[in-house]
Amino acid sequence: MFLPRKILEKKLLDMLAEDVGQGDITTALTIPAESISEAQIVAKEAGVAAGIEEARVLLESLGLKVETLTSDGEKIKPKQALMKIRGNTRTILSAERTILNIVSRMSGIATTTRELVEKLQKAKLTTRVACTRKTAPGLLYFDKKAVLIGGGDTHRLHLDDMVLIKDNHILVAGSVEAAVRRAKEMGSFSKKIEVEVSNAKDALAAVRAGADIVMLDNFSPKQVEKTVGLVKKAGFLGKVLIEASGGITARNTLEFASKHVDVVSLGELTDSVKALDLSLEITKVGNT
Amino acid sequence: MFLPRKILEKKLLDMLAEDVGQGDITTALTIPAESISEAQIVAKEAGVAAGIEEARVLLESLGLKVETLTSDGEKIKPKQALMKIRGNTRTILSAERTILNIVSRMSGIATTTRELVEKLQKAKLTTRVACTRKTAPGLLYFDKKAVLIGGGDTHRLHLDDMVLIKDNHILVAGSVEAAVRRAKEMGSFSKKIEVEVSNAKDALAAVRAGADIVMLDNFSPKQVEKTVGLVKKAGFLGKVLIEASGGITARNTLEFASKHVDVVSLGELTDSVKALDLSLEITKVGNT
Amino acid sequence: MFLPRKILEKKLLDMLAEDVGQGDITTALTIPAESISEAQIVAKEAGVAAGIEEARVLLESLGLKVETLTSDGEKIKPKQALMKIRGNTRTILSAERTILNIVSRMSGIATTTRELVEKLQKAKLTTRVACTRKTAPGLLYFDKKAVLIGGGDTHRLHLDDMVLIKDNHILVAGSVEAAVRRAKEMGSFSKKIEVEVSNAKDALAAVRAGADIVMLDNFSPKQVEKTVGLVKKAGFLGKVLIEASGGITARNTLEFASKHVDVVSLGELTDSVKALDLSLEITKVGNT
Amino acid sequence: MFLPRKILEKKLLDMLAEDVGQGDITTALTIPAESISEAQIVAKEAGVAAGIEEARVLLESLGLKVETLTSDGEKIKPKQALMKIRGNTRTILSAERTILNIVSRMSGIATTTRELVEKLQKAKLTTRVACTRKTAPGLLYFDKKAVLIGGGDTHRLHLDDMVLIKDNHILVAGSVEAAVRRAKEMGSFSKKIEVEVSNAKDALAAVRAGADIVMLDNFSPKQVEKTVGLVKKAGFLGKVLIEASGGITARNTLEFASKHVDVVSLGELTDSVKALDLSLEITKVGNT
Amino acid sequence: MFLPRKILEKKLLDMLAEDVGQGDITTALTIPAESISEAQIVAKEAGVAAGIEEARVLLESLGLKVETLTSDGEKIKPKQALMKIRGNTRTILSAERTILNIVSRMSGIATTTRELVEKLQKAKLTTRVACTRKTAPGLLYFDKKAVLIGGGDTHRLHLDDMVLIKDNHILVAGSVEAAVRRAKEMGSFSKKIEVEVSNAKDALAAVRAGADIVMLDNFSPKQVEKTVGLVKKAGFLGKVLIEASGGITARNTLEFASKHVDVVSLGELTDSVKALDLSLEITKVGNT
Amino acid sequence: MFLPRKILEKKLLDMLAEDVGQGDITTALTIPAESISEAQIVAKEAGVAAGIEEARVLLESLGLKVETLTSDGEKIKPKQALMKIRGNTRTILSAERTILNIVSRMSGIATTTRELVEKLQKAKLTTRVACTRKTAPGLLYFDKKAVLIGGGDTHRLHLDDMVLIKDNHILVAGSVEAAVRRAKEMGSFSKKIEVEVSNAKDALAAVRAGADIVMLDNFSPKQVEKTVGLVKKAGFLGKVLIEASGGITARNTLEFASKHVDVVSLGELTDSVKALDLSLEITKVGNT
Repeated sequence: MFLPRKILEKKLLDMLAEDVGQGDITTALTIPAESISEAQIVAKEAGVAAGIEEARVLLESLGLKVETLTSDGEKIKPKQALMKIRGNTRTILSAERTILNIVSRMSGIATTTRELVEKLQKAKLTTRVACTRKTAPGLLYFDKKAVLIGGGDTHRLHLDDMVLIKDNHILVAGSVEAAVRRAKEMGSFSKKIEVEVSNAKDALAAVRAGADIVMLDNFSPKQVEKTVGLVKKAGFLGKVLIEASGGITARNTLEFASKHVDVVSLGELTDSVKALDLSLEITKVGNT
Repeated sequence: MFLPRKILEKKLLDMLAEDVGQGDITTALTIPAESISEAQIVAKEAGVAAGIEEARVLLESLGLKVETLTSDGEKIKPKQALMKIRGNTRTILSAERTILNIVSRMSGIATTTRELVEKLQKAKLTTRVACTRKTAPGLLYFDKKAVLIGGGDTHRLHLDDMVLIKDNHILVAGSVEAAVRRAKEMGSFSKKIEVEVSNAKDALAAVRAGADIVMLDNFSPKQVEKTVGLVKKAGFLGKVLIEASGGITARNTLEFASKHVDVVSLGELTDSVKALDLSLEITKVGNT
Repeated sequence: MFLPRKILEKKLLDMLAEDVGQGDITTALTIPAESISEAQIVAKEAGVAAGIEEARVLLESLGLKVETLTSDGEKIKPKQALMKIRGNTRTILSAERTILNIVSRMSGIATTTRELVEKLQKAKLTTRVACTRKTAPGLLYFDKKAVLIGGGDTHRLHLDDMVLIKDNHILVAGSVEAAVRRAKEMGSFSKKIEVEVSNAKDALAAVRAGADIVMLDNFSPKQVEKTVGLVKKAGFLGKVLIEASGGITARNTLEFASKHVDVVSLGELTDSVKALDLSLEITKVGNT
Repeated sequence: MFLPRKILEKKLLDMLAEDVGQGDITTALTIPAESISEAQIVAKEAGVAAGIEEARVLLESLGLKVETLTSDGEKIKPKQALMKIRGNTRTILSAERTILNIVSRMSGIATTTRELVEKLQKAKLTTRVACTRKTAPGLLYFDKKAVLIGGGDTHRLHLDDMVLIKDNHILVAGSVEAAVRRAKEMGSFSKKIEVEVSNAKDALAAVRAGADIVMLDNFSPKQVEKTVGLVKKAGFLGKVLIEASGGITARNTLEFASKHVDVVSLGELTDSVKALDLSLEITKVGNT
Repeated sequence: MFLPRKILEKKLLDMLAEDVGQGDITTALTIPAESISEAQIVAKEAGVAAGIEEARVLLESLGLKVETLTSDGEKIKPKQALMKIRGNTRTILSAERTILNIVSRMSGIATTTRELVEKLQKAKLTTRVACTRKTAPGLLYFDKKAVLIGGGDTHRLHLDDMVLIKDNHILVAGSVEAAVRRAKEMGSFSKKIEVEVSNAKDALAAVRAGADIVMLDNFSPKQVEKTVGLVKKAGFLGKVLIEASGGITARNTLEFASKHVDVVSLGELTDSVKALDLSLEITKVGNT
Repeated sequence: MFLPRKILEKKLLDMLAEDVGQGDITTALTIPAESISEAQIVAKEAGVAAGIEEARVLLESLGLKVETLTSDGEKIKPKQALMKIRGNTRTILSAERTILNIVSRMSGIATTTRELVEKLQKAKLTTRVACTRKTAPGLLYFDKKAVLIGGGDTHRLHLDDMVLIKDNHILVAGSVEAAVRRAKEMGSFSKKIEVEVSNAKDALAAVRAGADIVMLDNFSPKQVEKTVGLVKKAGFLGKVLIEASGGITARNTLEFASKHVDVVSLGELTDSVKALDLSLEITKVGNT
């Protein structure tokens, strides 16, 4: 998910504009126009840094000098400074909250994702941790990128990059087979086809109809195990990817992951984010 | 925060456009163009409904019929249907995730806010529960409105609607007195002036300099109590509003709130949201 | 009203784009692509400079060098050069009219505002001169900032930053008291409440109900005086701000202002602007 | 200047959005969500109506019913109602100021333009009254359309629709002849070529070089007369249009206009607008 | 590629706004404001209709009534009417060119695509005809949708929906194997991996490294055949998709397509479009 | 058509953003973030370069260094390098396709236009080659500029820059005379009036009514000749411009052009573009 800097810059400036409104009145009233400062963004708790690149791009676009002291994906400790900023004080203070909101949300997502990824690694599992499309509206890029930085999988980015046949599609199409058949015939060769199923029978039907991935939705760990067994017996294990989804949380992930579950996906990674606590502190005022 | 419908509609359509990308390929492949359905949005857990109005505006702008079964601010129970939707199936399914993301985030915020508000009411306190500017970038309107629906106070909306002099402003301005004096002389008569302070002495200085509101930042409950005493002694109690902020969480709010603390503000109301679990289910296919 | 430069730049470029259309055909036909020039913006009449910062930001964003010879808020004389510009001739000439339109409108507003402010100062009055929301659509930031530069008060910036209960609100709400009560109970602690009234009785009602500011709308100077007397008698003088508005013009302001009228507001400051006459003159062509 | 309604609607909604900010807090606090009202826009002074169409489009796009009681271009009297509006009270009041700002600016422009046009008509002159590109930034369409409604000529709309060679172009190009020659050779056959000149000699040079229109800039009425004589002598009268511009005001127009001056243009028509005083009054509350 | 109507409408209105500029002056001058007409869009040559849906959405959004007489994907004959339009004449004529430009480009693309698809079908081949990312900038949705309507394959929609490793990526990554390995390890499970190769050896390397699709770029038909043979011998035929690309034109497609070539892709489908000739004719004026 | 660089940059970045979507996943997976490269854009066939300036502006806005090796309007040969690019490899590769799409379309248009212009020059004709409004939606600036670079005439840019009365306008207005009369009376003096006619009689009517240009639409070369004769006889030759349009193609242009036809216009110049084949090749990787 490489976004040329100028395109990212535009998204970030739109966020800043929302917060600034018609202008920062406090800063205009209390800070001289020509004041120059140095500031730091400091972590107040441990976690995984994310949004460092976004903060740098936004701050530099505003004419500020930035020295990053960590990188996206690095672990950070309480009181650790993430970056130094130098330049016009009014500009720094007007952008403070927007910058912190971005970095603390992205770092919060990356931190939770990393914990899960490491939990699976410790259990010697290669199951991937994926997020879903339950991102904050308007923050698709930022939420997905934070998951990537945490070591997770972005899953589908939006409605145009994978065919994902869900319960409601199947209901209207008539059957798993009908839906998959149509998608294989008419869909682009460039897209994978995934099918969300609610029972083992439909899982097998999807696999047989040619799905690339089958998503076991709201299965218990037992049901997952049983379904994997049936897929194996049918000779499709290794030919189709298996994703477990629905009802999976940070706490119970290990029950769902297994060597035959290729992916576990969790909505809460992006819809129930705990922001990482950060602050911006001016460390020096004036030119000296 | 009344937003004329067409202006709200534009914000909502931008959110949908982000998720749809170049088009919903799954729906195009599996659902006939002329298919008509009925669907419901159903709560999977208890909480306070918010975003109902936003969902309605977005769905109606897409040409769908909506019947709301609850209203913003109403308590909802698990399995309760929040609204019925009827119309073109492709349209319903393409908008499903965006709608759910909006309603589940807003309802999550409203639910947590309401819990806090009721906790204070039970304790017979009139202290207001306010959020901060720690909203998700781009979601200012939605996050603030959800707090309102939950019974909370929006606090400052952006950088142009109240003078809020914070630690960094004071550092650069030289002193609390200097900053407040300048704000009172040069600022618009139409704006309140609030000062964030880190100790009782600065609190008194702010009050004496003419601040309308003083924010006790990261004070312990004890320190809050002591500061309130000093303000009282100085004859300003009732003439200045007192806000406690920083380190306040849903759990420890009661320790901070008291009859002389007018406002408690919590960043977590909007930066660490727990989405309310919802789903959209097609209940009928076809015209019958 | 401090706006980070990049956000201001975007507003200014949108204005330029409107005027340029699909491209400046005259400049393309008559000026060589590589031509370099020096130019000056020159005042053709006396006034107060405003928009200098906006002109600089737009010109620099287009790759031109700018040397400002005055600053926002400085008085200027006829024939005085306000800034020197150097760079690509086509770029200078394509932006000429947009730059002049911005500076001449903002300077016109600042000039009129300053005249009024100085008139009051000479009369030893501390009454503030405020504009209203009668700004040119789309020019809110520019009109309000020009008033500030002239020494005036921006008043409310938009509909979200102060509660201002006007005649129509009172009509629908039923009474001044009902409207103010509801605003005090449900409104954010961060916002002031102002009430527009059309007679002395309502003024007192608003004050008693807890309004922070009372706006005497379309009162004669006599009625203003009488109302101030009643407010004083009721013990609220100094506790509530008094604004006189409606029917006030540059000519009759002094009749309205008095030591107990805190603010006079005039729609004409921004809705009936007299542009300051300016021109842009090329002073040197070529690199020498 | 016919703009399809949906394109006009977008411009108007952007204006409204600027004023509303994050939402109208006064209206939300004092007006019940379901309140319905009738209102009227009433003129407080005489003039020529303009912006009636724009108001209608914006109001209808917000779901309100509109009955116009006058049309663009009609003369209006003090206290005359221009339109009736019916619908959601919150919506009416949130849009009130934006609507009035648009109609009062456009009507102000149309009124001044009409006065000038009628003055010339009374003098039995066919000279056209034109505005210039001195429009308020962002309001090009509205300012030009108001001039049209007043009976004036829009002149060039932006930089792409006529070749207008001005002093600075001539300075860089070397001479009037050089500039016009290049424009005729390389410019599109679809565009007219106008040349701004500062003396009679250059006027003749422009005419001889093939200009379609010659603009006599900052000429005294005497100089205009003399130049017209020279053009006549050279055999070009009737083959080239003559425009007088610069230093022309509502007061001195008649001195400049004559049967051989085809156009007089005035910057003040759009850069020094006097808004027509209007108000919106709620006339009925509730459904009855 | 299903796009909710309102999102498509916005794209279409932006196109119209570009063409209209500050307003259609011809229509305003020659057509009465209240004139009503009926019009038809008529084909002047045979082809495949595309853009019918887009025309309908744009016309209806402008308040016009539309009766479509054909559908996207239908074959049309010279002089055949594609749709009837009824409503405000000014609106119809202002939108005429934009509508025709959209429908004639999309129909041109669909027509060429269909010819190729039918050519392959006649040759009893199941090879898919795909376009590339060589779409007109800004017209991605329209160009890709027209290919779909013609019976072709959209291929990758943009840079985020498939991993497509091209020559330059391989050059920087060091080798086909290195690039594919990294993509498989770090890329999302939800995306296919395609590799563009310039010789048979690299084709095999890509297949062995785990590519889902291998694109034979600028191969001669002979080289294609030879490579297919090697892939077969290596046991990967049927497990990997084979795409031929580069140098393929409508004329030589059959030489490249074969039963083992799954996809042929042609840049010219979208970068060298021949518009289908269409016209809009008013068939009735007035209300009768 | 001179567009200040920042305004052009915005159009170009919007095009890039469309293609990049949520990010270039291939480049992120296969190219190290800090990789630096040199690349060249190379022509694969002969033609006329156009879009060189656009490519430079976009590439430089992304932080890349550009050395142009040809200029807009220069003839280029197969294998000729058009520009060298140096900088971050990910950025180069993410922008590759958008840059090539712009340059190849514009060069294709310029090439065809130039061929026609030279054909007329060889025939010693001064007839201009013009395009029409049949540009790709959204690409108005780019298509028209490419025609200019090829030596052609842009014709009308959009609906606001010339009065062009077409068949449908005449049908509704009642007659050629009625339409032209109204346009002359009410239209701005700054715009030319052109009339599209379908027979010699209407041509004469238009000329007599005062049209500046008459467009002979779908006339055979014979009819053109006859009409020119009639115009001459009526004494208008040289006083009105004559344009031949409709059914003119690159092949038959010479039959239509003659010394009395001032302009031939061809829709196919912009609606049936053949892109010039180009590629971007990385020539050096790393810092050496």
